[in-house]
Amino acid sequence: MGSPVTIALDAMGGDFGPSVVIPAAALSLIRHPDTHYIFFGRESEIREQMSDHSPLAAVSRIVHTDVAVSMNEKPSQALRHGRWKSSMWLALDAVKKGEAHAAVSAGNTGALMAMARFCLHMQPGIERPAIAALWPTLKSESVVLDVGANIGTNARTLVDNAAMGAALARALFSVDKPTVGLLNIGEEEIKGLDEVKAAAAALRNPDLPIEYRGFVEGDALGKGIVDVVVTEGFAGNIALKTAEGTAKQIGAYLKAAMTRSLMARLGAVLAQGAFQALRAKMDIRKMNGGMFLGLNGLVIKSHGGADAVGFASAIDLGYDMAASGLVASIARDVERFHNALNTKTETALKAVAQ
Amino acid sequence: MGSPVTIALDAMGGDFGPSVVIPAAALSLIRHPDTHYIFFGRESEIREQMSDHSPLAAVSRIVHTDVAVSMNEKPSQALRHGRWKSSMWLALDAVKKGEAHAAVSAGNTGALMAMARFCLHMQPGIERPAIAALWPTLKSESVVLDVGANIGTNARTLVDNAAMGAALARALFSVDKPTVGLLNIGEEEIKGLDEVKAAAAALRNPDLPIEYRGFVEGDALGKGIVDVVVTEGFAGNIALKTAEGTAKQIGAYLKAAMTRSLMARLGAVLAQGAFQALRAKMDIRKMNGGMFLGLNGLVIKSHGGADAVGFASAIDLGYDMAASGLVASIARDVERFHNALNTKTETALKAVAQ
Repeated sequence: MGSPVTIALDAMGGDFGPSVVIPAAALSLIRHPDTHYIFFGRESEIREQMSDHSPLAAVSRIVHTDVAVSMNEKPSQALRHGRWKSSMWLALDAVKKGEAHAAVSAGNTGALMAMARFCLHMQPGIERPAIAALWPTLKSESVVLDVGANIGTNARTLVDNAAMGAALARALFSVDKPTVGLLNIGEEEIKGLDEVKAAAAALRNPDLPIEYRGFVEGDALGKGIVDVVVTEGFAGNIALKTAEGTAKQIGAYLKAAMTRSLMARLGAVLAQGAFQALRAKMDIRKMNGGMFLGLNGLVIKSHGGADAVGFASAIDLGYDMAASGLVASIARDVERFHNALNTKTETALKAVAQ
Repeated sequence: MGSPVTIALDAMGGDFGPSVVIPAAALSLIRHPDTHYIFFGRESEIREQMSDHSPLAAVSRIVHTDVAVSMNEKPSQALRHGRWKSSMWLALDAVKKGEAHAAVSAGNTGALMAMARFCLHMQPGIERPAIAALWPTLKSESVVLDVGANIGTNARTLVDNAAMGAALARALFSVDKPTVGLLNIGEEEIKGLDEVKAAAAALRNPDLPIEYRGFVEGDALGKGIVDVVVTEGFAGNIALKTAEGTAKQIGAYLKAAMTRSLMARLGAVLAQGAFQALRAKMDIRKMNGGMFLGLNGLVIKSHGGADAVGFASAIDLGYDMAASGLVASIARDVERFHNALNTKTETALKAVAQ
């Protein structure tokens, strides 16, 4: 790989395909001028979009394929008809072959995860992948995982998620010993699922390269009290979607309140700059991108309905993760976690697993 | 019971005890002048607070006890030292004896639930209690349950929660056939836990006194697309707390934005009325009160840190639930659900349970 970072893009994924993916890459290129791109999809459509973006064209390669995975395909269907030849598969395969450092797709999550596992395989020592999200907080951002790759709580998976999340936080936030919390329904040690308790016992080990801060509740997510919040995919996905929904709900309340009287409208005009700053702060497009962790390669899933600004954020994430050498650092970290977990903890985890 | 509604109050529960509970009852009495109250706790402290509220004193009875359950007691400890004699127990016992229609406590959730189960027992046909919350939505309010009574998904419990939630919605919202959704991590039928899928199959029965609307995701909670959102206690609690945290987070963003420049501050002064309306809309104190469902009696749990306005909302809920005869209507509804669940569904549920 000649250039520092090469990103493989599934040009046909998402609700809008090339009309979003190409302008998004052009946006990301401005922020990271040392990026190269490989686009997978219908060449004519990609070329048409590319004609408006000559700087992008100069650092891009197009690989044509007619096969695209649709947004409502089941993972098994997608694998059957899209393996070896769909734009989604080819983007992942470019990562596998070492031609690209990361693959980004706005295609459907289930299909992308199934193909990623099939194509890239799990990293040694990790049993299940996780999807990590960047969560905006009052302080800055936190890594929250898993937000939907695996449902059902399992102590070993929670510990692996902590290891992967910590490696990601180290890469993205430049912290040496990230603070880690376990999402639970109470801060008291007496509460919560047995599996969560077993994971807590394992993480309370001072030899681990993290600062374990105990249980955190749902209302702590937005406060940013820890760098990494660990949970399983069902609760994590519900939390993520609930936060997005609540933000939209309050935005709607605010809009209604600011237009209900002449005085309010005048006030809103004067405070225009403030509202713009608020909108920028609450712009979920900036947080777009679910990071697949635990695979032998970097994969970022963009929201299917993302616009160019949103998809560009997902590409930026891919760039940052690739530039930090995340796959290698996860491998190192997970080994440290597994070594540090003493026999006693292993026994406790096994007892819970049975 | 002479008066239409009598409420039993644990005067010692919560972070503030009588100094919140008595003013709260005085507030609720203004809204519901036909209420009577029985206060359980230290008589001298209750009398001292009551001296400022003569209309309340006229409709209240005080039952003295020195024993109070503390906020950090484990349920087992609370049961051991507080059974038969604590203010919490006595309030529940008043409901059991038919002296009061509902008990309200701001004491710790685990202890209150353990005592409520022990004192009141489960309603016939219901295996596990649920805690229901009123969720503010863009349309009005939804019932969300379970938000923390039981953790771990179980198809039978989800179906019972749907029945209880529907009865509650019928009582609080005056709808005949409440719309019901199952919280899941995707609207597609292919997603989610097996137990959730089995519950979905059972609820898709046209003979039930609900309109089943399928799966809803976390971001649908705030939209109010259904009257009742059904989930298990872990995910439900995480969702509730996450929404509360996100609302606070955005409130903090808004405050910061509106004070960052002179223009913004001027605008905020002009839009003062609008901001007050927004604050009122976002006032979570109005939504205070976790409703324990499935027991032979009505129990409402207030936030431990609630002020008088918040605790008064919990008393209001107790009033509304009692006035509608909720326990009897839940019993009727659950029977209809169980009758309507045909043998095929029963078999499917059993297969998943094994």
